[in-house]
Amino acid sequence: MRAALVCVGMGTAAAGATPVDPLPSWNEGDAKTAILQFVSRVTAQGGRDFVPQDERIAVFDNDGTLWSEQPYYFQLAFALDRLGKIAAEKPELARTEPFKTALSGDRAAMAKLDQHDLLKIVAATHAGMSVAQFEREVRDWIGTARHAPSGRRYAEMVFQPMLELLVYLRSKDFKTYIVSGGGIDFMRPWTQAVYGIPPEQVIGSSVKTRFVSDPDGVRLEKLPEIDFIDDGPGKPVGIQRHIGRRPIFAAGNSDGDLQMLQWTTAGRPATFAMIVHHTDAGREWAYDRKSSVGRLDKALDLAPVQGWTLVDMKKDWAVVYPSPQASRNLVVPDEERKQ
Amino acid sequence: MRAALVCVGMGTAAAGATPVDPLPSWNEGDAKTAILQFVSRVTAQGGRDFVPQDERIAVFDNDGTLWSEQPYYFQLAFALDRLGKIAAEKPELARTEPFKTALSGDRAAMAKLDQHDLLKIVAATHAGMSVAQFEREVRDWIGTARHAPSGRRYAEMVFQPMLELLVYLRSKDFKTYIVSGGGIDFMRPWTQAVYGIPPEQVIGSSVKTRFVSDPDGVRLEKLPEIDFIDDGPGKPVGIQRHIGRRPIFAAGNSDGDLQMLQWTTAGRPATFAMIVHHTDAGREWAYDRKSSVGRLDKALDLAPVQGWTLVDMKKDWAVVYPSPQASRNLVVPDEERKQ
Repeated sequence: MRAALVCVGMGTAAAGATPVDPLPSWNEGDAKTAILQFVSRVTAQGGRDFVPQDERIAVFDNDGTLWSEQPYYFQLAFALDRLGKIAAEKPELARTEPFKTALSGDRAAMAKLDQHDLLKIVAATHAGMSVAQFEREVRDWIGTARHAPSGRRYAEMVFQPMLELLVYLRSKDFKTYIVSGGGIDFMRPWTQAVYGIPPEQVIGSSVKTRFVSDPDGVRLEKLPEIDFIDDGPGKPVGIQRHIGRRPIFAAGNSDGDLQMLQWTTAGRPATFAMIVHHTDAGREWAYDRKSSVGRLDKALDLAPVQGWTLVDMKKDWAVVYPSPQASRNLVVPDEERKQ
Repeated sequence: MRAALVCVGMGTAAAGATPVDPLPSWNEGDAKTAILQFVSRVTAQGGRDFVPQDERIAVFDNDGTLWSEQPYYFQLAFALDRLGKIAAEKPELARTEPFKTALSGDRAAMAKLDQHDLLKIVAATHAGMSVAQFEREVRDWIGTARHAPSGRRYAEMVFQPMLELLVYLRSKDFKTYIVSGGGIDFMRPWTQAVYGIPPEQVIGSSVKTRFVSDPDGVRLEKLPEIDFIDDGPGKPVGIQRHIGRRPIFAAGNSDGDLQMLQWTTAGRPATFAMIVHHTDAGREWAYDRKSSVGRLDKALDLAPVQGWTLVDMKKDWAVVYPSPQASRNLVVPDEERKQ
């Protein structure tokens, strides 16, 4: 299951042969050049900007950076599936916000729910579940649920150019992390299979859990209380908490990533920050300053001032999603999910 | 700096030669045999209990398991050095607990301060400092301060048999983690040099931090508020938060490790849990049920019932601390601390 993507874009070539392009889904242009030049600078032995392997930390936002996030965060779709069942048993829930909006079916209103609302919904719908139960539920959902507007499975809506970038950085001994406002327990069951990122390299928002030991055995139980919101200024805090080192590479797409990019680029002299700018209404979506999901406003203004690389999805990406054939490998097959 | 210890106890041998003992500081006996047999079981390709490499998670308590903890937690000595300075400026602090006891000089009373008290002291003495300042202070202290009763530097009071065990497990593709009630930011600056464990594999108690961006730049600032106590039932919670996988190997020495051992051994069929029993008043200390530091009572009763391996320090360890020569490599030299 872990090898699903390592065949993509490895940049090694036999001696004398033309070097293989490690980023084949990236069009030639400033963004691709900047990535390749940065990696070359920090990995050149003896070079002024050389960074030892164990300090090559790369952090990636998830929603809108590694996969799509429209018309609303995919985790909301997951939570809604469960909320419907819960609300049938607890009608009072359906009368209070943000649950009322979440259950309204009004997509415009639902798209305005932010990460905090999402966490409240997740907390309310999963309190009392064990972490193991929750994990099973997420695995089942990611393997079967489909994104209503497109009919694709959610794991087929990851960005092929970003998958190549992850593999390329790892081939250069970077350690790749996810740093997302989304729920840590929502991502971990599938990030290894889909992105090649193991659970211990996933940082996200969380609810509190407690250890329970009773005649049924021992388990970790999710509580209806938010523990940590890994968004905006929470991202550098989450990075310090989990990694304890400052990244040298950061990728985001919204103002929620601004502080992560600041924190990264205020470190060593040689750092890299990039913003995925959603400019492609044909193949994906086009949105920035006025979007309620993934709003990109302040960070869009700061990018040129700070020297952050703006990736123009329409111009810089030759393809957006993996081919249907490659996608079949992106979701964990049932037989592998049983262990 | 990272290679300091990798020369210790590697169990590889040239074809035909006598295999090198990977645990030379462990006397032959049940404990050593149990460790070697467990590792052999879970790493035997095709065996019934084989565990894939990325699931070979080993967790180690720190105080009393990887280094000594008497007459009181070493982090308390660190905090006291700073508390003295703070109390001179804020005399009201010296009149309230646990600060009053901490400043009393009464070792018996000080030894009764628990991890919660310790965290309060750390929180009070380091509020407003940046994480980077704190890290510098810890590095300076660990490189220079000496344990009053023995005159040794603290990093010379790590257990040689446990260093060998860490190296041995890593040579078998285990990922080694620290899971300690001590402060995460207190351990991270030196665990790589001393134990070969990088900052991202250190789990500990923490105070809250916040991201600050002002004309002085960006920084993470420590707040006078406890965020997480990684002790007792907090240990499985911390493990889930940071790793997201259940360990297959756990080592502790006190009742504060009980739930971590339970959580580990309630997982797969093949797991290993060990308790370092401090039985050696000559070379280290002898204490268990009645000690205020590192009390071992309930877990001592549970060990035989649960099949946990009890390590008798006096009987099972040929040496306790590294030789003075080896110890010189255990503390980060000044020139390496500057980067």
